[in-house]
Amino acid sequence: MVQKPAPDSTRRSEKSRRAIYDAALALVVEVGYAKATIEGIAARAGVGKQTIYRWWPSKADVLLEAFLDLSEQYAEAVAPPGQEVQQEYGIPDTGDLAADLKYVLRATVDELVDPKFEAPSRALAAEGVVDAQFATQVVSRLLEPQLQLYVQRLRAAQNAGDLRRDIDPRIALELFVSPLAQRWLQRSGPISYEYTDTLVDYALGGLAPR
Amino acid sequence: MVQKPAPDSTRRSEKSRRAIYDAALALVVEVGYAKATIEGIAARAGVGKQTIYRWWPSKADVLLEAFLDLSEQYAEAVAPPGQEVQQEYGIPDTGDLAADLKYVLRATVDELVDPKFEAPSRALAAEGVVDAQFATQVVSRLLEPQLQLYVQRLRAAQNAGDLRRDIDPRIALELFVSPLAQRWLQRSGPISYEYTDTLVDYALGGLAPR
Repeated sequence: MVQKPAPDSTRRSEKSRRAIYDAALALVVEVGYAKATIEGIAARAGVGKQTIYRWWPSKADVLLEAFLDLSEQYAEAVAPPGQEVQQEYGIPDTGDLAADLKYVLRATVDELVDPKFEAPSRALAAEGVVDAQFATQVVSRLLEPQLQLYVQRLRAAQNAGDLRRDIDPRIALELFVSPLAQRWLQRSGPISYEYTDTLVDYALGGLAPR
Repeated sequence: MVQKPAPDSTRRSEKSRRAIYDAALALVVEVGYAKATIEGIAARAGVGKQTIYRWWPSKADVLLEAFLDLSEQYAEAVAPPGQEVQQEYGIPDTGDLAADLKYVLRATVDELVDPKFEAPSRALAAEGVVDAQFATQVVSRLLEPQLQLYVQRLRAAQNAGDLRRDIDPRIALELFVSPLAQRWLQRSGPISYEYTDTLVDYALGGLAPR
Protein backbone atom coordinates (compact mmCIF):
# COMPACT_ATOMS: atom_id res chain seq x y z
CA MET A 1 0.00 0.00 0.00
CA VAL A 2 1.44 3.32 -1.04
CA GLN A 3 1.59 5.86 1.74
CA LYS A 4 -0.15 9.09 0.92
CA PRO A 5 1.93 12.26 1.26
CA ALA A 6 1.28 14.13 4.49
CA PRO A 7 -1.34 16.86 4.12
CA ASP A 8 -0.03 20.40 3.91
CA SER A 9 -1.06 21.26 7.47
CA THR A 10 0.93 18.35 8.96
CA ARG A 11 4.03 19.24 7.00
CA ARG A 12 3.67 22.86 8.02
CA SER A 13 3.33 21.83 11.68
CA GLU A 14 6.42 19.68 11.52
CA LYS A 15 8.35 22.55 10.02
CA SER A 16 7.11 24.93 12.73
CA ARG A 17 7.97 22.43 15.43
CA ARG A 18 11.52 22.15 14.13
CA ALA A 19 11.85 25.95 13.89
CA ILE A 20 10.59 26.28 17.47
CA TYR A 21 13.06 23.70 18.77
CA ASP A 22 15.95 25.41 16.99
CA ALA A 23 14.87 28.84 18.26
CA ALA A 24 14.45 27.57 21.84
CA LEU A 25 17.92 26.00 21.94
CA ALA A 26 19.60 29.00 20.32
CA LEU A 27 17.89 31.42 22.68
CA VAL A 28 18.72 29.53 25.86
CA VAL A 29 22.37 29.40 24.77
CA GLU A 30 22.42 33.14 24.07
CA VAL A 31 20.57 34.60 27.03
CA GLY A 32 20.35 31.71 29.50
CA TYR A 33 17.31 29.81 30.67
CA ALA A 34 16.05 32.51 33.05
CA LYS A 35 15.78 35.20 30.34
CA ALA A 36 14.47 32.98 27.56
CA THR A 37 10.71 33.52 27.12
CA ILE A 38 7.96 31.91 25.08
CA GLU A 39 7.60 35.29 23.31
CA GLY A 40 11.30 35.32 22.48
CA ILE A 41 11.20 31.77 21.15
CA ALA A 42 8.11 32.54 19.05
CA ALA A 43 9.64 35.70 17.57
CA ARG A 44 12.86 33.88 16.69
CA ALA A 45 11.00 30.92 15.18
CA GLY A 46 8.72 33.21 13.18
CA VAL A 47 5.51 31.82 14.68
CA GLY A 48 2.82 33.30 16.90
CA LYS A 49 3.21 32.58 20.60
CA GLN A 50 -0.21 30.90 20.58
CA THR A 51 1.32 28.24 18.31
CA ILE A 52 3.75 27.42 21.08
CA TYR A 53 1.17 27.53 23.86
CA ARG A 54 -1.04 25.18 21.82
CA TRP A 55 1.64 22.48 21.91
CA TRP A 56 3.52 23.08 25.18
CA PRO A 57 2.25 24.28 28.55
CA SER A 58 5.51 26.01 29.57
CA LYS A 59 8.95 27.18 28.58
CA ALA A 60 10.46 24.24 30.45
CA ASP A 61 8.42 21.82 28.33
CA VAL A 62 9.49 23.35 25.00
CA LEU A 63 13.13 23.32 26.03
CA LEU A 64 13.17 19.79 27.39
CA GLU A 65 11.50 18.50 24.22
CA ALA A 66 13.86 20.50 22.03
CA PHE A 67 16.74 18.94 23.89
CA LEU A 68 15.31 15.41 23.62
CA ASP A 69 14.89 16.00 19.89
CA LEU A 70 18.52 17.14 19.63
CA SER A 71 19.63 13.96 21.40
CA GLU A 72 17.69 11.87 18.91
CA GLN A 73 19.20 13.75 15.98
CA TYR A 74 22.61 13.14 17.49
CA ALA A 75 21.96 9.42 17.86
CA GLU A 76 20.84 9.24 14.22
CA ALA A 77 23.91 11.13 13.03
CA VAL A 78 26.36 8.81 14.77
CA ALA A 79 24.57 5.51 14.12
CA PRO A 80 26.48 3.21 11.74
CA PRO A 81 24.90 3.15 8.24
CA GLY A 82 22.08 0.63 7.96
CA GLN A 83 21.81 0.18 11.70
CA GLU A 84 18.56 1.18 13.30
CA VAL A 85 18.86 3.80 15.99
CA GLN A 86 17.82 2.53 19.38
CA GLN A 87 15.33 4.88 20.91
CA GLU A 88 17.25 5.63 24.10
CA TYR A 89 20.81 4.54 23.52
CA GLY A 90 20.35 0.98 24.80
CA ILE A 91 23.55 -0.34 26.34
CA PRO A 92 24.93 -3.32 24.42
CA ASP A 93 25.25 -6.70 26.11
CA THR A 94 28.07 -8.61 24.42
CA GLY A 95 28.73 -10.61 27.57
CA ASP A 96 31.81 -8.48 28.33
CA LEU A 97 30.63 -6.01 30.98
CA ALA A 98 33.77 -3.85 31.05
CA ALA A 99 33.86 -3.56 27.25
CA ASP A 100 30.16 -2.66 27.05
CA LEU A 101 30.45 0.04 29.70
CA LYS A 102 33.58 1.49 28.10
CA TYR A 103 31.82 1.58 24.73
CA VAL A 104 28.86 3.56 26.06
CA LEU A 105 31.01 5.96 28.09
CA ARG A 106 33.18 6.68 25.03
CA ALA A 107 30.01 7.57 23.12
CA THR A 108 29.03 9.86 26.00
CA VAL A 109 32.44 11.56 25.83
CA ASP A 110 31.84 12.23 22.12
CA GLU A 111 28.45 13.76 22.86
CA LEU A 112 29.64 15.92 25.76
CA VAL A 113 32.40 17.56 23.73
CA ASP A 114 30.26 18.07 20.60
CA PRO A 115 29.80 21.87 20.32
CA LYS A 116 26.26 21.53 18.97
CA PHE A 117 25.31 19.55 22.05
CA GLU A 118 27.44 21.22 24.67
CA ALA A 119 26.00 24.74 24.80
CA PRO A 120 22.32 23.82 25.27
CA SER A 121 23.28 20.99 27.64
CA ARG A 122 25.19 23.43 29.81
CA ALA A 123 22.38 25.99 29.81
CA LEU A 124 19.89 23.36 30.98
CA ALA A 125 22.28 21.89 33.55
CA ALA A 126 23.11 25.31 35.01
CA GLU A 127 19.44 26.11 35.46
CA GLY A 128 18.90 22.80 37.24
CA VAL A 129 21.67 23.64 39.72
CA VAL A 130 19.77 26.70 41.00
CA ASP A 131 16.14 25.78 40.19
CA ALA A 132 14.95 22.67 42.06
CA GLN A 133 11.65 22.43 40.18
CA PHE A 134 13.31 22.51 36.79
CA ALA A 135 15.94 20.03 37.98
CA THR A 136 13.17 17.57 38.87
CA GLN A 137 11.97 17.69 35.27
CA VAL A 138 15.46 17.36 33.80
CA VAL A 139 16.13 14.36 36.03
CA SER A 140 12.85 12.57 35.40
CA ARG A 141 12.73 13.20 31.65
CA LEU A 142 16.37 13.24 30.57
CA LEU A 143 18.82 11.95 33.14
CA GLU A 144 17.08 9.14 35.00
CA PRO A 145 15.86 7.33 31.87
CA GLN A 146 19.49 7.20 30.68
CA LEU A 147 20.73 5.99 34.06
CA GLN A 148 18.08 3.25 34.09
CA LEU A 149 19.71 1.77 30.98
CA TYR A 150 22.85 1.25 33.08
CA VAL A 151 20.71 -0.29 35.83
CA GLN A 152 19.33 -2.81 33.31
CA ARG A 153 22.81 -3.69 32.04
CA LEU A 154 24.16 -4.07 35.59
CA ARG A 155 21.22 -6.30 36.58
CA ALA A 156 21.99 -8.53 33.59
CA ALA A 157 25.62 -8.62 34.77
CA GLN A 158 24.48 -9.66 38.24
CA ASN A 159 22.49 -12.50 36.72
CA ALA A 160 25.50 -13.53 34.64
CA GLY A 161 27.75 -13.52 37.73
CA ASP A 162 29.88 -10.61 36.47
CA LEU A 163 28.77 -8.20 39.19
CA ARG A 164 28.38 -8.67 42.93
CA ARG A 165 24.81 -9.58 43.77
CA ASP A 166 24.83 -7.63 47.04
CA ILE A 167 25.23 -4.21 45.43
CA ASP A 168 22.55 -1.73 44.36
CA PRO A 169 22.97 -1.15 40.60
CA ARG A 170 21.46 2.35 40.83
CA ILE A 171 24.30 3.43 43.13
CA ALA A 172 26.98 1.27 41.48
CA LEU A 173 26.59 2.98 38.09
CA GLU A 174 27.48 6.32 39.68
CA LEU A 175 31.06 5.14 40.30
CA PHE A 176 31.83 5.50 36.59
CA VAL A 177 29.04 7.82 35.35
CA SER A 178 29.33 10.59 37.97
CA PRO A 179 33.08 11.28 37.65
CA LEU A 180 32.57 12.01 33.95
CA ALA A 181 29.53 14.15 34.78
CA GLN A 182 31.40 16.15 37.40
CA ARG A 183 34.44 16.77 35.16
CA TRP A 184 32.08 17.99 32.47
CA LEU A 185 29.82 20.08 34.72
CA GLN A 186 32.54 21.65 36.85
CA ARG A 187 35.39 21.45 34.32
CA SER A 188 37.49 19.86 37.06
CA GLY A 189 39.59 17.72 34.75
CA PRO A 190 40.13 16.61 31.16
CA ILE A 191 37.73 14.18 29.50
CA SER A 192 39.01 11.39 27.27
CA TYR A 193 38.41 7.75 26.32
CA GLU A 194 41.43 6.78 28.42
CA TYR A 195 39.87 8.47 31.43
CA THR A 196 36.48 6.77 31.14
CA ASP A 197 38.14 3.38 30.44
CA THR A 198 40.11 3.87 33.67
CA LEU A 199 36.95 4.65 35.63
CA VAL A 200 35.37 1.38 34.53
CA ASP A 201 38.47 -0.62 35.46
CA TYR A 202 38.76 1.04 38.89
CA ALA A 203 35.05 0.63 39.65
CA LEU A 204 34.85 -3.03 38.67
CA GLY A 205 38.19 -4.05 40.17
CA GLY A 206 38.05 -1.85 43.29
CA LEU A 207 40.67 0.43 44.77
CA ALA A 208 41.74 -1.83 47.63
CA PRO A 209 44.28 -4.57 46.94
CA ARG A 210 42.73 -7.95 46.16
CA MET B 1 53.71 41.32 76.06
CA VAL B 2 50.25 42.83 75.92
CA GLN B 3 48.91 43.14 72.39
CA LYS B 4 47.79 46.63 71.51
CA PRO B 5 44.23 46.98 70.24
CA ALA B 6 43.99 47.26 66.48
CA PRO B 7 43.92 50.83 65.24
CA ASP B 8 40.52 52.17 64.25
CA SER B 9 41.26 51.98 60.53
CA THR B 10 42.08 48.24 60.71
CA ARG B 11 38.92 47.46 62.64
CA ARG B 12 36.90 49.53 60.24
CA SER B 13 38.45 47.67 57.29
CA GLU B 14 37.67 44.29 58.81
CA LYS B 15 34.07 45.35 59.37
CA SER B 16 33.79 46.60 55.77
CA ARG B 17 35.33 43.40 54.46
CA ARG B 18 32.77 41.31 56.34
CA ALA B 19 29.91 43.54 55.12
CA ILE B 20 31.14 43.19 51.54
CA TYR B 21 31.36 39.39 51.78
CA ASP B 22 27.84 39.19 53.21
CA ALA B 23 26.49 41.54 50.54
CA ALA B 24 28.24 39.64 47.73
CA LEU B 25 26.83 36.26 48.83
CA ALA B 26 23.34 37.62 49.41
CA LEU B 27 23.29 39.35 46.04
CA VAL B 28 24.50 36.36 44.04
CA VAL B 29 21.82 34.23 45.68
CA GLU B 30 19.11 36.78 44.86
CA VAL B 31 19.92 37.78 41.30
CA GLY B 32 22.45 35.17 40.15
CA TYR B 33 26.10 35.61 39.32
CA ALA B 34 25.56 37.21 35.91
CA LYS B 35 23.46 40.11 37.27
CA ALA B 36 25.47 40.72 40.43
CA THR B 37 27.72 43.79 39.98
CA ILE B 38 30.45 45.47 42.00
CA GLU B 39 28.13 48.49 42.23
CA GLY B 40 25.31 46.32 43.58
CA ILE B 41 27.58 44.71 46.16
CA ALA B 42 28.92 48.12 47.24
CA ALA B 43 25.44 49.61 47.62
CA ARG B 44 24.22 46.66 49.64
CA ALA B 45 27.32 46.67 51.87
CA GLY B 46 27.06 50.42 52.40
CA VAL B 47 30.54 51.16 51.04
CA GLY B 48 31.82 53.03 48.01
CA LYS B 49 32.64 50.89 45.00
CA GLN B 50 36.23 52.19 45.12
CA THR B 51 36.58 50.38 48.47
CA ILE B 52 35.84 47.12 46.68
CA TYR B 53 38.07 47.85 43.69
CA ARG B 54 40.92 48.71 46.10
CA TRP B 55 40.84 45.17 47.51
CA TRP B 56 39.65 42.97 44.65
CA PRO B 57 40.29 43.27 40.91
CA SER B 58 36.94 41.73 39.85
CA LYS B 59 33.53 40.49 40.87
CA ALA B 60 34.75 36.91 40.59
CA ASP B 61 37.52 37.64 43.11
CA VAL B 62 35.16 39.15 45.69
CA LEU B 63 32.76 36.25 45.39
CA LEU B 64 35.36 33.52 45.53
CA GLU B 65 36.92 35.09 48.64
CA ALA B 66 33.51 35.58 50.23
CA PHE B 67 32.82 31.93 49.63
CA LEU B 68 36.20 30.82 51.01
CA ASP B 69 35.48 32.93 54.10
CA LEU B 70 32.07 31.28 54.49
CA SER B 71 33.73 27.85 54.30
CA GLU B 72 36.14 28.85 57.06
CA GLN B 73 33.30 30.13 59.23
CA TYR B 74 31.53 26.84 58.65
CA ALA B 75 34.62 24.84 59.65
CA GLU B 76 34.95 26.90 62.84
CA ALA B 77 31.27 26.45 63.71
CA VAL B 78 31.40 22.65 63.44
CA ALA B 79 34.85 22.11 65.02
CA PRO B 80 34.68 20.33 68.39
CA PRO B 81 35.30 22.75 71.33
CA GLY B 82 38.97 23.22 72.10
CA GLN B 83 40.05 21.67 68.80
CA GLU B 84 41.94 23.88 66.44
CA VAL B 85 40.40 24.23 63.01
CA GLN B 86 42.54 22.85 60.25
CA GLN B 87 42.94 25.38 57.51
CA GLU B 88 41.61 23.25 54.68
CA TYR B 89 39.71 20.38 56.24
CA GLY B 90 42.65 17.97 56.41
CA ILE B 91 41.50 14.37 56.07
CA PRO B 92 42.23 12.33 59.21
CA ASP B 93 44.57 9.36 59.04
CA THR B 94 43.57 6.92 61.77
CA GLY B 95 44.99 4.00 59.82
CA ASP B 96 41.46 2.92 58.79
CA LEU B 97 41.05 4.22 55.24
CA ALA B 98 37.37 3.38 54.85
CA ALA B 99 36.47 4.99 58.19
CA ASP B 100 38.46 8.15 57.41
CA LEU B 101 36.86 8.59 53.99
CA LYS B 102 33.38 7.98 55.40
CA TYR B 103 34.01 10.56 58.13
CA VAL B 104 34.99 13.28 55.67
CA LEU B 105 32.17 12.50 53.24
CA ARG B 106 29.62 12.67 56.08
CA ALA B 107 30.95 16.14 56.96
CA THR B 108 30.57 17.10 53.28
CA VAL B 109 26.96 15.89 53.33
CA ASP B 110 26.31 18.17 56.34
CA GLU B 111 27.81 21.13 54.51
CA LEU B 112 25.99 20.52 51.23
CA VAL B 113 22.56 20.46 52.88
CA ASP B 114 23.22 23.46 55.18
CA PRO B 115 20.92 26.24 53.86
CA LYS B 116 23.45 28.98 54.64
CA PHE B 117 25.97 27.20 52.47
CA GLU B 118 23.75 25.74 49.80
CA ALA B 119 22.39 28.86 48.06
CA PRO B 120 25.74 30.61 47.38
CA SER B 121 27.37 27.27 46.50
CA ARG B 122 24.69 26.63 43.90
CA ALA B 123 24.95 30.14 42.45
CA LEU B 124 28.71 29.74 42.00
CA ALA B 125 28.42 26.19 40.64
CA ALA B 126 25.75 27.18 38.12
CA GLU B 127 27.91 30.00 36.79
CA GLY B 128 30.83 27.61 36.39
CA VAL B 129 28.69 25.29 34.26
CA VAL B 130 28.17 27.96 31.60
CA ASP B 131 31.26 30.18 32.09
CA ALA B 132 34.53 28.34 31.44
CA GLN B 133 36.74 31.17 32.67
CA PHE B 134 34.94 31.43 35.99
CA ALA B 135 34.95 27.63 36.31
CA THR B 136 38.74 27.64 36.01
CA GLN B 137 38.94 29.93 39.02
CA VAL B 138 36.44 27.93 41.06
CA VAL B 139 38.35 24.74 40.31
CA SER B 140 41.83 26.12 41.04
CA ARG B 141 40.87 28.06 44.18
CA LEU B 142 38.05 26.02 45.73
CA LEU B 143 37.60 22.55 44.31
CA GLU B 144 41.07 21.25 43.43
CA PRO B 145 42.67 22.19 46.79
CA GLN B 146 39.97 20.11 48.51
CA LEU B 147 40.46 17.18 46.13
CA GLN B 148 44.23 17.28 46.73
CA LEU B 149 43.57 16.48 50.40
CA TYR B 150 42.03 13.20 49.22
CA VAL B 151 45.05 12.63 46.98
CA GLN B 152 47.33 12.98 50.01
CA ARG B 153 45.25 10.57 52.08
CA LEU B 154 45.11 8.03 49.24
CA ARG B 155 48.90 8.24 48.73
CA ALA B 156 49.37 7.51 52.45
CA ALA B 157 47.04 4.53 52.01
CA GLN B 158 49.12 3.30 49.06
CA ASN B 159 52.25 3.48 51.24
CA ALA B 160 50.43 1.62 54.01
CA GLY B 161 49.33 -1.11 51.59
CA ASP B 162 45.63 -0.27 51.94
CA LEU B 163 45.23 0.91 48.36
CA ARG B 164 46.43 -0.57 45.09
CA ARG B 165 49.75 0.97 44.09
CA ASP B 166 48.94 0.86 40.36
CA ILE B 167 46.07 3.36 40.56
CA ASP B 168 46.11 7.13 40.11
CA PRO B 169 44.79 8.69 43.36
CA ARG B 170 43.50 11.79 41.54
CA ILE B 171 41.13 9.62 39.50
CA ALA B 172 40.43 7.11 42.28
CA LEU B 173 38.97 9.76 44.61
CA GLU B 174 36.34 10.59 42.01
CA LEU B 175 34.69 7.20 42.50
CA PHE B 176 33.28 8.34 45.85
CA VAL B 177 33.49 12.16 45.61
CA SER B 178 31.83 12.65 42.21
CA PRO B 179 28.63 10.66 42.85
CA LEU B 180 27.88 12.91 45.83
CA ALA B 181 28.74 15.98 43.75
CA GLN B 182 26.47 14.91 40.90
CA ARG B 183 23.52 14.11 43.18
CA TRP B 184 23.92 17.52 44.76
CA LEU B 185 24.48 19.47 41.52
CA GLN B 186 21.81 17.77 39.41
CA ARG B 187 19.51 16.69 42.27
CA SER B 188 19.55 13.21 40.75
CA GLY B 189 19.12 11.35 44.03
CA PRO B 190 18.90 11.68 47.81
CA ILE B 191 22.00 12.47 49.86
CA SER B 192 22.62 10.74 53.19
CA TYR B 193 25.38 9.26 55.37
CA GLU B 194 24.23 5.79 54.34
CA TYR B 195 24.67 6.73 50.69
CA THR B 196 28.21 8.09 51.07
CA ASP B 197 29.21 5.13 53.28
CA THR B 198 28.01 2.84 50.50
CA LEU B 199 30.05 4.71 47.88
CA VAL B 200 33.23 4.18 49.90
CA ASP B 201 32.52 0.48 50.35
CA TYR B 202 31.75 -0.04 46.64
CA ALA B 203 34.81 1.94 45.50
CA LEU B 204 37.28 0.19 47.79
CA GLY B 205 35.83 -3.30 47.38
CA GLY B 206 34.96 -3.06 43.69
CA LEU B 207 31.78 -4.00 41.87
CA ALA B 208 33.02 -7.25 40.35
CA PRO B 209 32.94 -10.42 42.46
CA ARG B 210 36.22 -11.15 44.26
